[in-house]
Amino acid sequence: MDFFDVVSVEEGREKLLKHFEDTTFHVEEVLILESVDRILGENIYSKENVPQFNRSTMDGYAIKSKESYGASESIPSLFNIIGSVEMGKESAYTVKNGEAVYVPTGGMIPEGADGVVMIENTEKLDDSTLMVYKSISYRENIILKGDDIKEGELTLEKGRKITAEIIGVLAALGISKVKVYKKPKFYIISTGDEIIDLDEELTMGNIRDINGYALYALINKLGGEIVGKTIVKDNYESLRKEVEKAIDSSDIVLISGGSSVGTRDYTHKVINSLEGEGVFVHGVAIKPGKPTIIGEGKNKLIFGLPGHPVSSIIVFKIFVENYIYEKMNIKQYVAKTEAIIDFNFPSSPGRKTYQMVKLEERDGNIYATPSFGKSGMISLLSNSDGYIVIEPYEEGIYKGERREVFFL
Amino acid sequence: MDFFDVVSVEEGREKLLKHFEDTTFHVEEVLILESVDRILGENIYSKENVPQFNRSTMDGYAIKSKESYGASESIPSLFNIIGSVEMGKESAYTVKNGEAVYVPTGGMIPEGADGVVMIENTEKLDDSTLMVYKSISYRENIILKGDDIKEGELTLEKGRKITAEIIGVLAALGISKVKVYKKPKFYIISTGDEIIDLDEELTMGNIRDINGYALYALINKLGGEIVGKTIVKDNYESLRKEVEKAIDSSDIVLISGGSSVGTRDYTHKVINSLEGEGVFVHGVAIKPGKPTIIGEGKNKLIFGLPGHPVSSIIVFKIFVENYIYEKMNIKQYVAKTEAIIDFNFPSSPGRKTYQMVKLEERDGNIYATPSFGKSGMISLLSNSDGYIVIEPYEEGIYKGERREVFFL
Repeated sequence: MDFFDVVSVEEGREKLLKHFEDTTFHVEEVLILESVDRILGENIYSKENVPQFNRSTMDGYAIKSKESYGASESIPSLFNIIGSVEMGKESAYTVKNGEAVYVPTGGMIPEGADGVVMIENTEKLDDSTLMVYKSISYRENIILKGDDIKEGELTLEKGRKITAEIIGVLAALGISKVKVYKKPKFYIISTGDEIIDLDEELTMGNIRDINGYALYALINKLGGEIVGKTIVKDNYESLRKEVEKAIDSSDIVLISGGSSVGTRDYTHKVINSLEGEGVFVHGVAIKPGKPTIIGEGKNKLIFGLPGHPVSSIIVFKIFVENYIYEKMNIKQYVAKTEAIIDFNFPSSPGRKTYQMVKLEERDGNIYATPSFGKSGMISLLSNSDGYIVIEPYEEGIYKGERREVFFL
Repeated sequence: MDFFDVVSVEEGREKLLKHFEDTTFHVEEVLILESVDRILGENIYSKENVPQFNRSTMDGYAIKSKESYGASESIPSLFNIIGSVEMGKESAYTVKNGEAVYVPTGGMIPEGADGVVMIENTEKLDDSTLMVYKSISYRENIILKGDDIKEGELTLEKGRKITAEIIGVLAALGISKVKVYKKPKFYIISTGDEIIDLDEELTMGNIRDINGYALYALINKLGGEIVGKTIVKDNYESLRKEVEKAIDSSDIVLISGGSSVGTRDYTHKVINSLEGEGVFVHGVAIKPGKPTIIGEGKNKLIFGLPGHPVSSIIVFKIFVENYIYEKMNIKQYVAKTEAIIDFNFPSSPGRKTYQMVKLEERDGNIYATPSFGKSGMISLLSNSDGYIVIEPYEEGIYKGERREVFFL
């Protein structure tokens, strides 16, 4: 019988981080147009004000706002039009009491003016006389210099995922290249005598390499690079040879498969045979995913992921993603929602349970129904929208409870 | 004064879809490893059962389950071990009453057996005699042939976004290439005399091309291809020339900028000068984003997006994304959450308001605080997590209300 010195999810994550605390993730410089979904590897301090001049948010007339006080449809205020500002040009005017300068949206507010009357609330009596029908408040319709981004401020923090909005901020600051974390290099090894690749003929007793492909896609989404993907038979020597090749070319090795005791033993032995600490987590109090192995060989991180597709994907999300997030300082708001549980279901006492659910909207509420199925089934995942976490001390979840659902 | 024949968001979306109802989005075949985040362009019917044999989910012994009934720690049931199944091989055994065959996790269940006793609940007396300490139920620890995916069933529907889980399903079915929608081709034109590119020197009165870069990233995320990105001065002839070039090489042209009346007029006139229907939406009851233009020229879709970064991004999400989603049959669950509103704020009567908010977790609740700022500010978006939609008939939102927040 095999014996697990099982750790909790939290302990497992800590051990992993502690073990690789000296490992630094390096950065590289890329063009901002190639940086979508990458992780910012530097703090961005703005070198300039955005905008670097007071800017109008409307088509209208720049005036001294207090001169408009009391203006109405019946008693308009009169102004003397002294000129108009051209887009993209510095304004040469200085607005004095009773004067107005035309400014288009985005145009520069002339000296002296502290507000813009929308053109809709004005009328020209002649080329130089303006009637204003509505009063404006101080700084109305103006974006002040530095209102959007102030010179010298910490605008974007290291660890932010680069979205369209962030690329907008970088563009606003005139930054065309940015430092992002280098893509961590992964090597995927699927093990099992029954595992065949997509181009092989499916004979009785065999099954296709689901995990290898699903992990490939997960790594892609996480922003990693896959340097190798292979299938190895259940054999100590073949596995050892492949793992040695893997650690030479990658940062993180994923050995998927090995749900049966025999295979798990090979993975364990191979990791321990390498120079380094060897296996430091063997078994996690998690469902699905108990037979998870985490170790180190030649300073590289090696995971032994369970063979069942659902377990393997969950363990990837819980440990591999978490590790990358921590190392890259990613503090992103997790995409989750609250839902009403639509079904009673039990937990696994002593284990943190990740229960797949399907979401449905009815009468303005979001309901979560558990997706039942065995963890060997990939359809369990493809038919679910997210998962609920049940803590080890909970007995189960009751219908009608409100719970957080994490999107897959 | 310009006059808008303003339509609602829903009317605008309908007009757009109606206008391009004959436009079909074509598909192309790609390797599944290159299909992450693409949209499935065909229905997938499974050509085989997954698994195509009854499979064990545990290391243990395959037996006739009823033979274990009544077995306990004190009174084990006895079985005759007749052999063991090898991984990846067809089982040659037939299990009869009182017989057991060892099966590893993932191994094929032999004929006659209908359940697997976990190895932990057994003990070998000698090489051919097994004691079973716990009864199992019918089909316990077995995934039946076709349990995961049944032969002939509609496994994945056209329009699904390809995730790691879906790639797992495709791999399980032995599918290495899949039909996905071709990337729609976009051409981005930023207009405005004040707009300069990142490599140009920032002189007073000018501002960098925020929209062009943000739209580039949004198109990227949406799965589109950018065939051109350029900045054009506010001038009818230059804009017309650029738009003609754009429609020759792309499917969708985005003209961003033109918040001032003059520029908006150019965009309008240019679209109307082309062969085709011209502008069919001019102004939408939406905040921000009112001066939105949608039109057609030479059978290509042309958008006139507002110049303010926030407006331009919101209008992209509301109209461009929606159009692509509809055309590609995307029925994805929208990433949103419920949050408690942390602040009273007014709406814009008669307009659908998209109010940016920041999310915060306190005492197990998610709170949404409105991000205040003018729509000309890119930082308004980069400092927000999502938005709340306020319908035109609503007066505002009150502190303490529960509302849906859509993630940015």
